[in-house]
Amino acid sequence: MKALVYQAPGQKALEERPIPEIAAPTDAIVKIVKTTICGTDLHILKGDVATCVAPRILGHEGVGVVAKVGPGVTTFRPGDRVLISCISACGRCAYCRRGMYSHCMTGGWILGNTIDGTQAEYVRIPHADTSLYPVPDGADEDALVMLSDILPTGFECGVLNGKVEPGSTIAIVGAGPIGLAALLTAQFYSPAEIIVIDPDENRLQVAKRFGATATVPAAGDKAAQSVVAMTGGRGVDTAIEAVGVPASFITCEDIVAPGGTIANIGVHGAKVDLHLERLWAQNITITTRLVDTVTTPMLMKTVQSRKLDPTKLITHRFPLDRILDAYDTFARAASTRALKVVIEA
Amino acid sequence: MKALVYQAPGQKALEERPIPEIAAPTDAIVKIVKTTICGTDLHILKGDVATCVAPRILGHEGVGVVAKVGPGVTTFRPGDRVLISCISACGRCAYCRRGMYSHCMTGGWILGNTIDGTQAEYVRIPHADTSLYPVPDGADEDALVMLSDILPTGFECGVLNGKVEPGSTIAIVGAGPIGLAALLTAQFYSPAEIIVIDPDENRLQVAKRFGATATVPAAGDKAAQSVVAMTGGRGVDTAIEAVGVPASFITCEDIVAPGGTIANIGVHGAKVDLHLERLWAQNITITTRLVDTVTTPMLMKTVQSRKLDPTKLITHRFPLDRILDAYDTFARAASTRALKVVIEA
Amino acid sequence: MKALVYQAPGQKALEERPIPEIAAPTDAIVKIVKTTICGTDLHILKGDVATCVAPRILGHEGVGVVAKVGPGVTTFRPGDRVLISCISACGRCAYCRRGMYSHCMTGGWILGNTIDGTQAEYVRIPHADTSLYPVPDGADEDALVMLSDILPTGFECGVLNGKVEPGSTIAIVGAGPIGLAALLTAQFYSPAEIIVIDPDENRLQVAKRFGATATVPAAGDKAAQSVVAMTGGRGVDTAIEAVGVPASFITCEDIVAPGGTIANIGVHGAKVDLHLERLWAQNITITTRLVDTVTTPMLMKTVQSRKLDPTKLITHRFPLDRILDAYDTFARAASTRALKVVIEA
Amino acid sequence: MKALVYQAPGQKALEERPIPEIAAPTDAIVKIVKTTICGTDLHILKGDVATCVAPRILGHEGVGVVAKVGPGVTTFRPGDRVLISCISACGRCAYCRRGMYSHCMTGGWILGNTIDGTQAEYVRIPHADTSLYPVPDGADEDALVMLSDILPTGFECGVLNGKVEPGSTIAIVGAGPIGLAALLTAQFYSPAEIIVIDPDENRLQVAKRFGATATVPAAGDKAAQSVVAMTGGRGVDTAIEAVGVPASFITCEDIVAPGGTIANIGVHGAKVDLHLERLWAQNITITTRLVDTVTTPMLMKTVQSRKLDPTKLITHRFPLDRILDAYDTFARAASTRALKVVIEA
Repeated sequence: MKALVYQAPGQKALEERPIPEIAAPTDAIVKIVKTTICGTDLHILKGDVATCVAPRILGHEGVGVVAKVGPGVTTFRPGDRVLISCISACGRCAYCRRGMYSHCMTGGWILGNTIDGTQAEYVRIPHADTSLYPVPDGADEDALVMLSDILPTGFECGVLNGKVEPGSTIAIVGAGPIGLAALLTAQFYSPAEIIVIDPDENRLQVAKRFGATATVPAAGDKAAQSVVAMTGGRGVDTAIEAVGVPASFITCEDIVAPGGTIANIGVHGAKVDLHLERLWAQNITITTRLVDTVTTPMLMKTVQSRKLDPTKLITHRFPLDRILDAYDTFARAASTRALKVVIEA
Repeated sequence: MKALVYQAPGQKALEERPIPEIAAPTDAIVKIVKTTICGTDLHILKGDVATCVAPRILGHEGVGVVAKVGPGVTTFRPGDRVLISCISACGRCAYCRRGMYSHCMTGGWILGNTIDGTQAEYVRIPHADTSLYPVPDGADEDALVMLSDILPTGFECGVLNGKVEPGSTIAIVGAGPIGLAALLTAQFYSPAEIIVIDPDENRLQVAKRFGATATVPAAGDKAAQSVVAMTGGRGVDTAIEAVGVPASFITCEDIVAPGGTIANIGVHGAKVDLHLERLWAQNITITTRLVDTVTTPMLMKTVQSRKLDPTKLITHRFPLDRILDAYDTFARAASTRALKVVIEA
Repeated sequence: MKALVYQAPGQKALEERPIPEIAAPTDAIVKIVKTTICGTDLHILKGDVATCVAPRILGHEGVGVVAKVGPGVTTFRPGDRVLISCISACGRCAYCRRGMYSHCMTGGWILGNTIDGTQAEYVRIPHADTSLYPVPDGADEDALVMLSDILPTGFECGVLNGKVEPGSTIAIVGAGPIGLAALLTAQFYSPAEIIVIDPDENRLQVAKRFGATATVPAAGDKAAQSVVAMTGGRGVDTAIEAVGVPASFITCEDIVAPGGTIANIGVHGAKVDLHLERLWAQNITITTRLVDTVTTPMLMKTVQSRKLDPTKLITHRFPLDRILDAYDTFARAASTRALKVVIEA
Repeated sequence: MKALVYQAPGQKALEERPIPEIAAPTDAIVKIVKTTICGTDLHILKGDVATCVAPRILGHEGVGVVAKVGPGVTTFRPGDRVLISCISACGRCAYCRRGMYSHCMTGGWILGNTIDGTQAEYVRIPHADTSLYPVPDGADEDALVMLSDILPTGFECGVLNGKVEPGSTIAIVGAGPIGLAALLTAQFYSPAEIIVIDPDENRLQVAKRFGATATVPAAGDKAAQSVVAMTGGRGVDTAIEAVGVPASFITCEDIVAPGGTIANIGVHGAKVDLHLERLWAQNITITTRLVDTVTTPMLMKTVQSRKLDPTKLITHRFPLDRILDAYDTFARAASTRALKVVIEA
């Protein structure tokens, strides 16, 4: 089968690889219908993700059709259309029982990381019963691909952890795909003000179309000052970090109101300064989270009932044999205006 | 009247001062029966608290008898015995309505800070109706003095924010009076393991007597390594920072389990390193809080029903005219083994 | 001044009455700009509300201008435009401190019940600081009149108590003004399905326009059977009772899914059968609540940010001197299609 | 093997039966070490439980040793000592993912009900990975038998649903084994007052020894009047129903304070009167729950750390071949003073 393989830092190729086999009784083999590329895939390709050792088939998102199941799989049968979660969960360990699938003791984020992933014609899914979701009849599969990772990530790490509430004032720092996913799902809770901060004017325009009530160009301390001014000096109830660099986290520290929450989504490569000399008395909460995808069933309902249209995030489409072009388009987002690219196998 | 006055950084004296007068309709004048000294008072004396301008009568804790009330006070009458909250709350502003009295727009921590405090024969209490609490008949007033600040601080900032639960594993970094208050009140929730970390062997012994299930001498990285080892490599569900220096906060970062909480109580004078490059994926929560004293009525019930005995924290007693000795004893806690000193007016 | 006075069961009149005076330091006198009529007023007029003794000026909703304040009022000044809460709250008692203003020990629902109310040119408001809310500049005062009672009632008793969530399935039994207020505010949380049940076809049409995803004519057991069928046999996550009669509560028992919630809003005059022989094992929650109006500031933000348009509920307008016509129109809602009538003083 | 078999209403016998076999890949066969008898077993024997069709081996509690596992079982191996949950949970269905194992679509309470149970030498456990718990080294297995059902039932249905909090006032109506389990686990949260109501003076004495702060003999309306008087007319924050008859539920309605909770544990055979004409405005919550046993791991930690000693509930012991005597003793609890009987296989 064809597969996009990470070969070494800086190197990837579309290779011919064997179709994966059932390796454990709880595995399923899924034929990929659609997949996509995540910012994390770019990090892996740079060599920044130590857990991912080349050669590795990348990809942790997708929709497909079950081809085979192991004897321990009870929920799915060959022919079932399924949404693949980016997080594999055994459903049995102490973390899974708490709904913290991200830290599943034999799963978590393994697809396209420690085991081969979804940017291929077939993929092996461990713990299939609790890591796949049935595709409802008539569902828009483009929309569902966005539910493998990006929507639950924006929602769980940003919106739920950020305790977004009706009437509240929130800011989202970063209007890339993840920040926009937080923007879309924050609106489930009817906040009064949604301020989006980003250096890219195009992305701010997109944010406006997606429901931001105000946008602020990111530029050093000024962005924080603008947000504080916009809120009458009070700051925001929820500041969502959707970039993953110290400067954007500091912006969150600078704009959070007393009693507010900083919800970190960004993947950070360096420590940041936490200004406890100022924040210790501000009654704030800071959260971090690797997405658990526990909200996938709920997000599917919001998509089915048209409360959420994640296809807004899709800007480009490619067949699997042009996935290298898809990577190129996605990597040069500033000029291509790419948000999410859908790859059809 | 006699009053302990902060005169300048490094200087304090027991002075003769006029008895305070009602200044607003919602004020009460309270004759002090018992008061105490807080670690914050020592910070003020060093000149570290910018909001507190000399000359100022110190003190924000105490039990007393209402001497006079303004025309807007409806809950208290002269002669009523009252517990004084360290936090003054108007009960009307947006923060007070959320129970965030610490950020009351015309109150908060003002006693012995921006207005004269309780280390005197009399004190003026603004917003008396919502800043004083009636002393129940037969209550132990020594116990109640501990409810002005230290118990609600340990409980709200450490235990409640730290989400201590039955069966959970918690660590308290710092076994001074505040850490010990967290230790006492954490036991309301029956955690399975309570590990206390402190450099002072005497304080660790006290912690054992107060309910710690294990103690660890604080000594660089080793304390964190010990705690991680004690928990089978998993870390603690709740790490309570009760010191206020970067090293102890870093210890909390090092010992918190995935899904756990770092509850900061300490008053910090410097920023700390937040290791997001490691913690971004650990699903942790970090909280800060200036005590709101919203749990004072509840804590009074636990004292009255003997679930909590805060008098354990009292090591020394002085009359008001020996308050300088009390300060000396409290400041040299390592050698005097002082925890809380009660001063009787 | 002119005032609508309940004279005896079945009797009311527009009378000339003295303008009220400040009676306690925390009182304000408010000149009414707009008021409205509540279903509860009709109950009083029938003689069904034992606490309300004739003669009494009715009304517990309204917007006005502060005319006078007592010496203990610190938040408002004459000339301030204010929203009047249907619930008077001292902000000091144990219930108020828990946010349970409905059970304020010296307040609660007293306006137009145990003291004179708002269907008059002036009204005396006890505990003014914590029972009035400033009208934001440029606010639509018609919208705000709906925030005195009906919107917080639908929201707090129905939506918040009912734990409405994104993607959930809810049913509202009763499409009168209160049920419709629940319908409007339920949408803050983006439920996937909102089923409204009522015998009145016109009200079902209104419900559809206001956001119901399905409507069911109320007719004995059949309504419940229809709802269960609509949900694939599972039932609803949240059933909101907005009528106040046994049959509609039983409908809620019949349609609530395992793990679901029945949130009662209705004012009941009789006991109901609770089928514990069936429900004991269904993991359900039943809630009752007299509105606390603690969410009034939040609801004002949603109105100001146009997430909520309560003026949709207003069907008729009358000047104060035609308030008897307003009562007639409101009482004959089935034929007049009245929802809320605004009365301008 | 020997097994206690329900043969027909009123009839049971210790019979010889075949050892059960693995029937599904996720099954385990467990050799019973200890089991016990539940009040529900007595209901079955009377013919009151329609789902349980004779002949059926009874019992849903126990500790044992894994004898065999199906190919889909990954967590347990033959020889592992295990605690058997009374609730079988697939860990995969929508209910299980919400932690509502009681309503597992292919499990729930099936042991000793719709499939053969634990009062035998061996039992087949479906969904073994998520329905068994490893016994910690050195654990007291008598204590663990109490964790199959009675402790999680008292804790989840009574204490957690009842929102017991430090300083709160609670009442437990019924001092049978379940009510006593609620009493023991309520103390995890340090309530100030625990009032226990029961007609049996012996059980009230036991309740006192187990931590009740007051006891009230159940006798018509007088018990409720006593409780209201004891709480200064206010009522209790939490009323736990642990009997399952209308009178005891009505007692809960009569004693719950405004803002309080009635947590039903009892298995009811008849409807009860819900006095909404009085309760609609009291801001109360009523909960029902079939135990989910989601707290089993947490309860094991509290047993291991000696916060909880469930062996207090054990009054009698019998070998399996004397199980008919055990039933007799348990059924005549009023005279035998039996609480829980342990049966050793």
